[in-house]
Order: sequence, then C-alpha cells, then structure tokens
Amino acid sequence: MVFLTEGLSVNKGHLKINGCDAVDLAHEFGTPLYVMNENAIRNRCVEYKKSIEDYCGGSGKGKIIYASKAFSCLEIYRIMRDEGLGIDVVSEGELYTALKANFPARDIHFHGNNKTFNELFMAVKNNVGRIVLDNFCELKMLEKICSEYGKKIDIAMRIKPGVSAHTHEFIRTGQIDSKFGFAIETGEAMRAIKYIGQIDQINLKELHCHIGSQIFDVEPFVLAAQVMMDFISSIRSEIGITIKELNLGGGFGIAYTKNDNPPSCEDYMKFISKAIREKARDFNLPMPYLYLEPGRSIVGEAGVTLYTVGAIKEIPNIRTWVSIDGGMCDNPRYALYRSDYTALIANKVEKDNDFKVTIAGKCCESGDLIQENAWIPKPKPGDIMAIISTGAYNYSMASNYNRIPKPAVVMLKDGKARLIVKRQTLDDLLKNDL
Amino acid sequence: MVFLTEGLSVNKGHLKINGCDAVDLAHEFGTPLYVMNENAIRNRCVEYKKSIEDYCGGSGKGKIIYASKAFSCLEIYRIMRDEGLGIDVVSEGELYTALKANFPARDIHFHGNNKTFNELFMAVKNNVGRIVLDNFCELKMLEKICSEYGKKIDIAMRIKPGVSAHTHEFIRTGQIDSKFGFAIETGEAMRAIKYIGQIDQINLKELHCHIGSQIFDVEPFVLAAQVMMDFISSIRSEIGITIKELNLGGGFGIAYTKNDNPPSCEDYMKFISKAIREKARDFNLPMPYLYLEPGRSIVGEAGVTLYTVGAIKEIPNIRTWVSIDGGMCDNPRYALYRSDYTALIANKVEKDNDFKVTIAGKCCESGDLIQENAWIPKPKPGDIMAIISTGAYNYSMASNYNRIPKPAVVMLKDGKARLIVKRQTLDDLLKNDL
Repeated sequence: MVFLTEGLSVNKGHLKINGCDAVDLAHEFGTPLYVMNENAIRNRCVEYKKSIEDYCGGSGKGKIIYASKAFSCLEIYRIMRDEGLGIDVVSEGELYTALKANFPARDIHFHGNNKTFNELFMAVKNNVGRIVLDNFCELKMLEKICSEYGKKIDIAMRIKPGVSAHTHEFIRTGQIDSKFGFAIETGEAMRAIKYIGQIDQINLKELHCHIGSQIFDVEPFVLAAQVMMDFISSIRSEIGITIKELNLGGGFGIAYTKNDNPPSCEDYMKFISKAIREKARDFNLPMPYLYLEPGRSIVGEAGVTLYTVGAIKEIPNIRTWVSIDGGMCDNPRYALYRSDYTALIANKVEKDNDFKVTIAGKCCESGDLIQENAWIPKPKPGDIMAIISTGAYNYSMASNYNRIPKPAVVMLKDGKARLIVKRQTLDDLLKNDL
Repeated sequence: MVFLTEGLSVNKGHLKINGCDAVDLAHEFGTPLYVMNENAIRNRCVEYKKSIEDYCGGSGKGKIIYASKAFSCLEIYRIMRDEGLGIDVVSEGELYTALKANFPARDIHFHGNNKTFNELFMAVKNNVGRIVLDNFCELKMLEKICSEYGKKIDIAMRIKPGVSAHTHEFIRTGQIDSKFGFAIETGEAMRAIKYIGQIDQINLKELHCHIGSQIFDVEPFVLAAQVMMDFISSIRSEIGITIKELNLGGGFGIAYTKNDNPPSCEDYMKFISKAIREKARDFNLPMPYLYLEPGRSIVGEAGVTLYTVGAIKEIPNIRTWVSIDGGMCDNPRYALYRSDYTALIANKVEKDNDFKVTIAGKCCESGDLIQENAWIPKPKPGDIMAIISTGAYNYSMASNYNRIPKPAVVMLKDGKARLIVKRQTLDDLLKNDL
C-alpha cells in the first residue's frame, strides 16, 4: 500500500501515523483532531538545511526561515529552535508566541503589509533580527521608533519582483499590482533605498521577495532570483552599496493528492543557486547569503486531521453526502480556494476506494465542504476519516464559526503521541463574553 | 447625507452610530472594533413580530426565531429573550452560550446536518423546544437517547423543498442535492415520517425548510411555502396526521451597498402568508403556526466594523491599496464569497467619495481583501474606516489567522456604548498551548 505522505503505514487494516494507530488516537484524544508528525517536520528541516549547504557554497552561506503563519503554536517554535532554523512572524501574536517559546529574537524575520505601530515597537524593543520593510508608511514609523528609543535596527526590504506564480502557472508581467512591497519598475524601491541610506539607525541588509504559493515549477523562482540580482546590481551602480543578503521567500508546493508531484527542495535549490551564481559572476557581485522561507512545505504534509463520520445521505443518481464532525471551522481551505485533499477511512485503509462521496462539514452552511467527489471505501457512521496534508493553514486558519471549539493538536514523535495544543472547551468560547 | 443603514448620522464631519461618535469609539475601545446598534436590532425584532401578527391572524399564530449563527454571544441571547423571540442554535457551543444567558430552552430550535451524539444528548437533557431532525442517522441516535433516558421530545423535520434561491452558488441550499434535510421527491421524507409515527417518545410537530441566503425575491419563499403545504396535505392523505407547524427558515436579504434593495419583512410576510392561507383553504387544512428564522436580517445591518487605516500604496494607473488593521481574520466574507460592502471614512463622512481604492487586510495573504474598487474620500494613515452592515457572519466567522486576536464587540443603546465581548489578549491566544 502506497501512501501520499511520509510516516503513513497500515497495520491490521488501520492507518498508522508515525507508528501510532490513527483510530486509537481518535479515541484517546477525541475528534476532530489535528495530528502532526514531528519526525516528518524535522526531516523537512534537515533536507532544507542540507540543500543550502550543498548548493550555496557550504555551511553559513544561507539560512532556512520557517514561515510560521502556516502553523503557529509554542511547540512548533521549540522544534524550529531545536533544528536551528530561523522563523518569520507576521503579527504581534506570532512574535509573542515565538518569544514565549524562547525563540532567539535575532533569528526572527517580521513580515506584513500593514504592521501597526505597536507591532513595530514590539519588534524593535525585542531586537528582532530583521523587520521586513513593506512600505513608506512603515518606514516613517520605524524611523520615529528608532529615534525615540535610540535603537539601531537591521531590516530587509520586500520587493515586487514582477513574477507571480501559483502551482503550474506563472506570469512575468512586471506585476506591480500587489498589496505587498515596493515596486522596482516605478522607481519606488530605489527611492526607498536612497531614503534609508540617509537614516543612521536603519541598516538595509537584505532584499526579499515572495512570488506565490503552492508552486510546482522551479522556473519562476529562477526568474525571481535573476530579477533580484539584476536589482542588486542596479543598486550598486546607482547608489554604490552592495546588498549582501537575498531572501527568495517561500511558496514551495506540497502533495495534497496523488496528482501533485512537487520538486524536492534540492531541485529548487540546485537551479536557484545556479541562477544566482551566474548573475553574481556576470555582475562581479559576491554570492549573496541566501534565505528561503518555506512554511507549507515544512509542516503541510506532516499533518493529518482525524474526524468521525456522522450522517450519510445517498441521493440516488446524484451524490452521496458524508458528514464529518468538523468542517470549514477547522479547515476553511475548500471553502476559500476549492483546495484538493485526499481522504482515507482510517479503520478501512486496506479496502478498495470504490465509493464516490462528497465530504461535508457540520457547519450550517452549504459551502461547508472538505472535498467533492472523493473516492473512499464505503463509509458508515462512526468510521474515522483521515484527511491528509492538513498541517499547513488548517489549525492556523481555524475559526469558531457556529461556535464550534477548536480541535486539539497532537504531535507524534518516534511512535509516541503528546498533546501540544489542548482542545477548546465550551467555557473557553465564553471567556471574553460579558 | 443619506446613509445605507439605520442609526447612522453625521456630526461635525464624523460618523455617528446610534448617537455615538465612531471616531471616539475607535479611540476608546481600539480598532478593529465590532460595533452593534442595539436599537436597530430591537427594531428589526419588533417589525418581524408585528408582521407575523398582522399577516398570520393575530398574536400567538407564529413566532420569530433568531438564527444565532449570524451573531452569537451571551448578550445577543439576552436581547432576544427580552424581545420574546425564539432562537435557533446549531451546535453545543451555541446551545451552551444560550443556556448560560438563561435563554428559555423551550424557545430553542436545534439545527444542523450532522449533530453529534453529545449535542443531541445535551439538547434532550435540557428540554430544547425543537430538535430539527436532519437525517436517519440522527433519528436513530435520538431514539436511543430518548429510550435510555425516558424522555419524550418534540421535533421538527428539515425538508428539502426543491426550491433554490438564486444568490451566490455557495450560499444556496434547498435542492435535493444538499447536505441538509430529507427529500420529498425520493420518498425519503415520507418514509421518515412514517417511522417517527411509530416512536412514542418522538413527536413530530413541525416541518422546516430553508431555501438559501441573502435572498431579495419574495417568490422563492412563496414557492417553498406552497411546496411545504402540498407536502403537509400529502402527509395527511397518506398517514392521516396533520402537521400544524410550518417553519420557512431564513435567508432574507439585507443592504450591503446602495444597489441592494431588500424587501421589508412585511413584504415577505404578506405574500408568504397569502400563499399559505390559499393552500390551507384549498386543502381544507388549518392555517399552520408559522415560524421564520431570520439571522442576518436582524443583526446584519446593525453592525459596523471600525478599522484604522495604515499603509497606502498608490500604484500609478493601476490601483490604490489601502491597508487596514484587520482583514479576513475578522471578516472573511470577501475572501469566501467576494461579498460587497460599503466603506466610509468615519472622520471624513462629509467629504466626496471621489477616490477609488482596494481595501486590503493585514494578513499575509494576497486574497485578504475587504473590498475592491470602493469609492471613499482620499484616505491617509490614521483615518478611521467604517465598513457597514457587518453585524452578521463577521464576529461569528472570525479566526485567529496570522495569530491575530479577535476584536472586541461594543453594543450601542440609546446613545450609550457598552462592551459586550472583550478583545482577545495575546495571552488568550496561548491559553491552550502546551
């Protein structure tokens, strides 16, 4: 039996996740349940680190930054700290959580298209490694904060590289119509860099770009790398300073279904580093220190959500509806993006997937679906359904829609399960009600 | 100056909401802030109650059930109790909250396509007025619970009336191909009714249907009423019992922009009651006791969300991006449904709306928008932006995406503001993290 993602196996007809029986997990911790495979997460970290070492001229020539918006809680920051990755955060809440987990501030990048004054102040006060400057409004606030509090900071700058990619599509339009970053074409980015050059307390160390999400092609990354190196060369020509750090963001695709064949991080790195090296040679620039910011591709495939099957409705010649005890409240990705997922029945993994169903959530909303036209063994109420590759943008996007408590998160390491986020209680829902 | 919704006015260039200066509210309670107008909510309740009295043959001939998934917290249940409305709940969480607010259980309808055993048990134990039976799986569980605990219960039954209201495809229910309810056409509904007839402890009192959301036409409701009356007649013919209560659900539209002209509840009731009366006369049936379940149309227009404007990016000849300090985390409706909204600058309401912008949230996601191509006065950082008609499906759908705390909710009554839901703190976000 071949499974889609690492760490899945079968034992006595039951799905095992990293050595743990999925049905037992469902009974012990209840459903819905987010299950994360720590070994798979750590393996991705190691692969990414190795690919930087192999292709960027050895250790110390780059760093992997985990994009924590994909999955953020105390424990994931502890794991990233342990693996020696940096992290990026996008809000006070993520920064607060990372600091509570004792994540070293110097290895934190702070992102966002609209950081508030409070967020910038918190980042400066805590000596966050890089604030990724997004716009002039923020630059003014940063200048004020640094001057009032006598702080010197290192920043990165988010650039619009004019490459936009998603899965198998990418366009090079000189796309500047984004809420994120500074445009090269309009002269905005260069103007900002000149302005920063006059501010003693703000030190521009790094250029950053991010071209999209769930990308399966290497070429748009190569294009983005070339555009960024061209811009680094222009900056040197025009202002005389050499930017020595390049951050190509994230967006590396993962497998949600068997139709998805994402490149390995080695494949990405091989071609990206080659493009950067060639540009560096052509322009006689130093090979920049390289950052990549994978989020989904570190935690996405490591996650499985377990649900209990409830009502089943066979509508002759139309559709069989299978309802689960969660839905868009714990996984809004189908409602938001029509995302594909793979479903298994954890207590029937060896049976044939010969039954076509639509998997519906329990929210009072007809758009609350997890997947349409999924093939699974014939289900019955009480079965445990496993949705694969839910490690990214599920827990982090969960709501209390229909006033449904958020599920627990369990982390599996070397065949042992431990609770890392407790299930919300009904009283938790009322905590702030007056 | 004409405003879209009740209770908005202008004073010294500032937006007032039910007598309170919106800019003052933003400063006192912080942004983002959900502001709810209690007088507007109560006025909708009174109008709905009056329309039932006027068109259904006087008081005691029907009841308005507030569909609390639109906006659920302790205080809204207290207001509904005070107004004498019933409520519907769709989960343990909503039921728990309503009971904590001392809402009378007998006036609660419990909905849902996949109620769990725990939810049904909780509903039975607390003597909820109507469990709205959705499917056979649930019927079996109910039978078991009633028999084990020696309880007798009154139920409603959700029927698919085969009428679909043509709004957004994904907020449409009511066809045979739906996750909700029993189909008439396939004989499923009649089969269930016969089965229930043999169970002493389960008493079928009411038929229920729900045809969609944000509907602007009266006709689909009239059609649904006719279908349901035809079915009530068929039940009497086939089984000899007369169902005396009819619930036509909700879905009544509200104004999000000036292009929206929803009928009044009186308009709906006039035609719906006429259709029911004619069918009752034709079939020689008693005029049924009528339930309607408005949610959005009670609280939707009563809500305004206040944000602080942050970064502004004018991209020449393309677009001006205006970022606010909230986004899809507090209002995911544009991301989910491309919903229209009206934006005002609360400190510039008398200025001309001569500036076209796209309003973006602060989440690290390019789809995090509140509105594209909105016309407002030229904005600057620090302005207070008001998004109108956010009382429904905003707070209730809020997430902690990007680990952003949920905003506070303030209720305004007779020109006075009181906090009804406290803003989440950063520590709240960590409460269940281990």
